[in-house]
Amino acid sequence: MKNKIFSFLFVFFCVTVAFSQNKEKTKAPSSYQNTEFHTDYKPNYKNDGLNKPVKNVILLIGDGMGLAQTSAGMYANHNTLTISNLKNIGLIKTFSLNDFITDSAAAGTAYATGKKTKNGCIGVDSLGNKLPNMTEILSPLGYATGIVTTDKITGATPSAFYAHQIKRNMTKEILEDLVNTKALFIAGSSVKDFEKNNPEKLDALKKKNFKVLHDYKNLPLSMEAEKIALICDEMNAKFISEGRDPNYLKETTAQAIKFLSNKSKKGFFLMVEGAQIDWASHNNVIENVVREVLDFDKAVEEALKFADKNGETLVIITADHETGGMSLSNGNIEKGYIKAHFATSGHSPIMVPVYAYGPQAQLFRGVQDNTEIFSKILSALQVKK
Amino acid sequence: MKNKIFSFLFVFFCVTVAFSQNKEKTKAPSSYQNTEFHTDYKPNYKNDGLNKPVKNVILLIGDGMGLAQTSAGMYANHNTLTISNLKNIGLIKTFSLNDFITDSAAAGTAYATGKKTKNGCIGVDSLGNKLPNMTEILSPLGYATGIVTTDKITGATPSAFYAHQIKRNMTKEILEDLVNTKALFIAGSSVKDFEKNNPEKLDALKKKNFKVLHDYKNLPLSMEAEKIALICDEMNAKFISEGRDPNYLKETTAQAIKFLSNKSKKGFFLMVEGAQIDWASHNNVIENVVREVLDFDKAVEEALKFADKNGETLVIITADHETGGMSLSNGNIEKGYIKAHFATSGHSPIMVPVYAYGPQAQLFRGVQDNTEIFSKILSALQVKK
Repeated sequence: MKNKIFSFLFVFFCVTVAFSQNKEKTKAPSSYQNTEFHTDYKPNYKNDGLNKPVKNVILLIGDGMGLAQTSAGMYANHNTLTISNLKNIGLIKTFSLNDFITDSAAAGTAYATGKKTKNGCIGVDSLGNKLPNMTEILSPLGYATGIVTTDKITGATPSAFYAHQIKRNMTKEILEDLVNTKALFIAGSSVKDFEKNNPEKLDALKKKNFKVLHDYKNLPLSMEAEKIALICDEMNAKFISEGRDPNYLKETTAQAIKFLSNKSKKGFFLMVEGAQIDWASHNNVIENVVREVLDFDKAVEEALKFADKNGETLVIITADHETGGMSLSNGNIEKGYIKAHFATSGHSPIMVPVYAYGPQAQLFRGVQDNTEIFSKILSALQVKK
Repeated sequence: MKNKIFSFLFVFFCVTVAFSQNKEKTKAPSSYQNTEFHTDYKPNYKNDGLNKPVKNVILLIGDGMGLAQTSAGMYANHNTLTISNLKNIGLIKTFSLNDFITDSAAAGTAYATGKKTKNGCIGVDSLGNKLPNMTEILSPLGYATGIVTTDKITGATPSAFYAHQIKRNMTKEILEDLVNTKALFIAGSSVKDFEKNNPEKLDALKKKNFKVLHDYKNLPLSMEAEKIALICDEMNAKFISEGRDPNYLKETTAQAIKFLSNKSKKGFFLMVEGAQIDWASHNNVIENVVREVLDFDKAVEEALKFADKNGETLVIITADHETGGMSLSNGNIEKGYIKAHFATSGHSPIMVPVYAYGPQAQLFRGVQDNTEIFSKILSALQVKK
């Protein structure tokens, strides 16, 4: 009997220890030695923060990219990032209508429509009423609009810029909204999603005059198309460490800018999402956080280079929320080594930085609510809403 | 025999579980329901960020106050902080000469002298050579200078602004440096330190023409003194939750500004430290983090009010480093409730925000090294170094 009690207690404590170790494991520090350094782009600051007219807006959203994520990317990249060269910095409060911790659906909706909504809602208020989004407001005014992501094109952040659905997982309905989008340039994954969810499949996009491509390398040959839909395979919504082409985001951003700037004399609006920073942070894997921040930083470079040439382009770089409750534990700038700690596998409610460049970048300084990004973009474009 | 093995295993696992639980406990989320809300001060922004002359500089250092700490304070204070009203925001890299994670000695030295040094060094380089600090550079030029802290006056941050010692714990030598300081106004703890470490005790300060006070409430009656040394008892270097007078920092800051602004026509430099934010974060206790951030915010208010009246005052609010690897877990704005997670009981190397207000506040925008704060202050004052 005594042996049985001891046996029971022994097993009980083994399980307890295993459990507590497992719990600790998901929160263990994660370290990464970067080996792929890139040189930061230093913009010319010519029209930066000046009260001058804005023709084009490029909004780059690093999903889940809080201060810890950009700090990690910067230190792992020998203490430099193109993002770190920007002078107009603000802080954004990210909470949603019903939750102190937002999800990407409510946060994307705040940026795309200027309204807070419930977590899970895409472009609708908490009652399901449609909220006009940036592409819907600007396209009828003559602006060419576009959406680029390293996520599925039906992901919460990109879909907030074209769809209106009460639940972010209504992929079928979101794809129907995509087919009817006002955007002229869309890029994301995946062909498989279309095959599975849409009865008309990619033909529906073709009927709406989209030239449908599957490889970003074909973009330069398609610049004469009326509209472009780059619908990639699944691999383009995975980590670079899993095989995503490290030129995809950077090149697609550059081609989207080229395409949209040629499409309209009025101007353009482009949203670019670095989506995998979020997933890397959800997974608590610092290697992927760093590599995805650096990948995103190269897309930022493309936006800034165009802004420098163009002179009437406002570039805004921010996050929808922080993911992972990430903090830095240690590092070595010379070696490009960084060590981080994650408090959660979910999102956190800490404020996120916003960096702005070009004319009217001064509007984004200071502490602000996430809904203000929408109104400040419209204000910079002198569009009344 | 079998029983003995089981007994041994049982005890071993009990100890393991207890140990792992204890380890977890120090990193457990800590929550706080704020009950003492204050109204934020909204400055007039009249000279904010303009290229106009600067006569006075007030540098307020929230020790250990990273983005998580100010976010927590803001949300717990019904979504407002006076600090959050500032428009010129930058980010600061805090690493020291020999460590990716700085201590307050090296970080304080970077702000006070513009040079990176080894952790532990106060106002000296890594070889022990004296580095001229802000009070020593500005006082001979006719500026009135002062130092206020909620720490011991010999703490690493305040002492970086008057002392030169190779180790931060050389209290006796640091107190000797204090007696010879060029600053006209010093405030911190403690009488006990003087009694213990200085053979001449507080008389040494009196011989240097300091009017020595022990209670901040006597400051208004001492404005005619040549110099003021407010040497408080131990309680003034404790948490508000332990009984520190919640008016001490706010009132002493206001009186220091009054005293220094009357002392010189040239202008003044004042450093104010909210020291207990650091200790609260070291202890991983969110209640004290919030209460100390809110206390510090009230000192910021005093600085901004003077700046608004004066028009030639630059106010800079920052941290020397982040402490605790703090992240936010949850919260409720309406209730003033906040929940946080701490990754460490030490410092972390994440960048810290800097907020600036008044003429030349624009200099502090963007990402910068901690040594640049020193050079930008001198540049704002048009002092060559």
